[in-house]
Amino acid sequence: MDLSVAEIIVIGNEILSGKRTDTNSAFLGRAFSRVGITVDRKVTVPDTHEGIRNTVKDALERVSLVVTSGGLGPTIDDITREALAEASGIALHTDEDYLAEVKRKFESRGITFSENNRSVALVPDRGTFFRNPNGSAPGLLFRGDGFVLVALPGPPQELEPIVEESLIPHLRELDPSLQPRIKRVFRLVGLGESNIDLEVREMVKGEDAIEVASMPHLGWVEVTFSLLEPDDDHRKRFDAVCDRFAERFSGEIFGDGDTTLEGRVGELLKGRGETLATAESCTGGLIGGRITAVAGSSDYFLGSIVAYSNDVKINALSVPLDTLEKHGAVSEPVAAAMARGVRDALGTDWGVSVTGVAGPGGGTDQKPVGLVYIGVAGPSVEQVEQHQFIGDRRGVRERSVIASLNLLRKCLCR
Amino acid sequence: MDLSVAEIIVIGNEILSGKRTDTNSAFLGRAFSRVGITVDRKVTVPDTHEGIRNTVKDALERVSLVVTSGGLGPTIDDITREALAEASGIALHTDEDYLAEVKRKFESRGITFSENNRSVALVPDRGTFFRNPNGSAPGLLFRGDGFVLVALPGPPQELEPIVEESLIPHLRELDPSLQPRIKRVFRLVGLGESNIDLEVREMVKGEDAIEVASMPHLGWVEVTFSLLEPDDDHRKRFDAVCDRFAERFSGEIFGDGDTTLEGRVGELLKGRGETLATAESCTGGLIGGRITAVAGSSDYFLGSIVAYSNDVKINALSVPLDTLEKHGAVSEPVAAAMARGVRDALGTDWGVSVTGVAGPGGGTDQKPVGLVYIGVAGPSVEQVEQHQFIGDRRGVRERSVIASLNLLRKCLCR
Repeated sequence: MDLSVAEIIVIGNEILSGKRTDTNSAFLGRAFSRVGITVDRKVTVPDTHEGIRNTVKDALERVSLVVTSGGLGPTIDDITREALAEASGIALHTDEDYLAEVKRKFESRGITFSENNRSVALVPDRGTFFRNPNGSAPGLLFRGDGFVLVALPGPPQELEPIVEESLIPHLRELDPSLQPRIKRVFRLVGLGESNIDLEVREMVKGEDAIEVASMPHLGWVEVTFSLLEPDDDHRKRFDAVCDRFAERFSGEIFGDGDTTLEGRVGELLKGRGETLATAESCTGGLIGGRITAVAGSSDYFLGSIVAYSNDVKINALSVPLDTLEKHGAVSEPVAAAMARGVRDALGTDWGVSVTGVAGPGGGTDQKPVGLVYIGVAGPSVEQVEQHQFIGDRRGVRERSVIASLNLLRKCLCR
Repeated sequence: MDLSVAEIIVIGNEILSGKRTDTNSAFLGRAFSRVGITVDRKVTVPDTHEGIRNTVKDALERVSLVVTSGGLGPTIDDITREALAEASGIALHTDEDYLAEVKRKFESRGITFSENNRSVALVPDRGTFFRNPNGSAPGLLFRGDGFVLVALPGPPQELEPIVEESLIPHLRELDPSLQPRIKRVFRLVGLGESNIDLEVREMVKGEDAIEVASMPHLGWVEVTFSLLEPDDDHRKRFDAVCDRFAERFSGEIFGDGDTTLEGRVGELLKGRGETLATAESCTGGLIGGRITAVAGSSDYFLGSIVAYSNDVKINALSVPLDTLEKHGAVSEPVAAAMARGVRDALGTDWGVSVTGVAGPGGGTDQKPVGLVYIGVAGPSVEQVEQHQFIGDRRGVRERSVIASLNLLRKCLCR
């Protein structure tokens, strides 16, 4: 079956009214493009039987792969499931085993299984369903004559693992011509997107078979090289361009498309058999929060002291009172003392500190909003960086997290 | 003209491939819903003449207000403008005054005006156009017999001011019945969406003029009541239903649509003139990070001790070694000791603690992944809650943050 072109249908009044921004269709677009499926159209419709049914029917007339997101939750009447069954001509039945599984899951959490939850076990007569590791509604696949209709739950943390672990492998079985495109992904930190972009464009000039896309994130950038024609000659040129890029930006690249900055820092610490603690002021705990997002981070991360008040800086981090009085809490000497202080207090090899003005209030002419000092203290290393970040409170704090992880990374790479 | 129902058409390959997440349509949905315009459908199409023309034509058959976003930039061929002219049957002409204006703008910034920029001055023969404070392509309004077709530039910083300052006022002139809709929004924590939903449905049974929508978030739920027919009688019934809801869920409601849980906790602490510190294990600093997302949180938040390792629990939080050995780090007595310990160590009125198994590893039969203890110690209060969360590492940690803020909120409300 040719599944190379897809349409996505997003179901939900809350998406139409703008209460929720749809990220699922962008996620699906990326996941599909990695195996050569082009998304040709996206439609968002309200939670109504007719709207869903007609939109799905329309889509199935144009393409043989249609994917819906949303409308499967237990609180919504079974509008979506019924509309999909009608549109596809494939009826539903209750999968008793799955129902029992969900009931057990509820019971083990001490939650009453109310009868309006029963519909989560309705699955297509022809097709299959995909278990949902983070929820009760499974993904549904209606397999008709010459088409595949897929229904996925709306919450991104439910949809995303189903797509990666179940849907994509299943679609590749149904259409073996779906092949992952040859790609190389680099993640860079510490450089603006436009600086990178200018150089990259120069590198790929005249290379018609190489597509390059850069995607900016708060504080870091992802650059993806894709090979459009995978013959030997183009493959060689592709590798050469990617290698040149990797060399040029070796100091800024922290990993490939699966690497996070906190993951990279963790690998470096584990490789050295060393430990880390953080001393945070304006980030309030976000750096520790980010580091511990990595499973197994207890191997190298011992803890943090969040010193939001000066008293805590003095008592828990041993920042000298006169340093605080002379230079102020947002200063190079205080950042240095905090990094040293937490290293001593928690007995780690490395200490990372952040102190800054996150805003919107608290800025002065000398110390404007966005001024942030980042310190690292380690075995025979001590370094403080000054940054002037732009953006709102959230942006300044997020950039501070990234910059602190990056300074630590650079120190660990020496 | 009745402009109460709209369709949005988003133009752009980069949106379909997921390289860029569309936020314009969510923005439009919110802006429209504030004046009573319901968005009934959203379609994303590639940058092709036919695709745009046919999709706009289809939409104009269903509704009398169609808005497109994207495809107007000066670097793109004039596909969009031409497709819209064809779909609406309204031709374009060059507005020489506007062209001169744009030329002057370019010159004043020292940029050469190249001829492919001329098309930004193409405007509809019937209708109007809206100046773009942050770019050169104006918003276009095609006014046909019984319909309005609007084309807006794609960059959000260009689209958003045009919508707020020009488009919405203009639409309200064309359809004076457009009125801001009466709404009440409640945010609830500590109850599953399905439990709330069942009761709400019962409350609004037979109330045809009241629309209710609940939106689940990780750990909390937002419920919105909207009044569809704003006459006196319906208004009274609407207020009565909302008041009944507010009373029934008074323990779970933490605020309206602008209130965050961390903001609410901050208000309560400020109101009492008391201070807070957190002791975090599996959340790694995220609770402090969340609390300090609120500007001005330094008034009541002094800091955290993130005790990821047992050594830090013992040394910095004074958790007794034998308690740790007897009950394990993830246990009720340790959660209680951590909350007390951080309250003492940082000298605050309140201490909040979290210790749990975030996963994916580390779970046992007795202490499975998702088991989390949350403690609060305060003036004459000490309480520990046990939770069994579902979800992946991120979900367990996020739910732990919410649950800890909620337990603190409940203690502060007593």
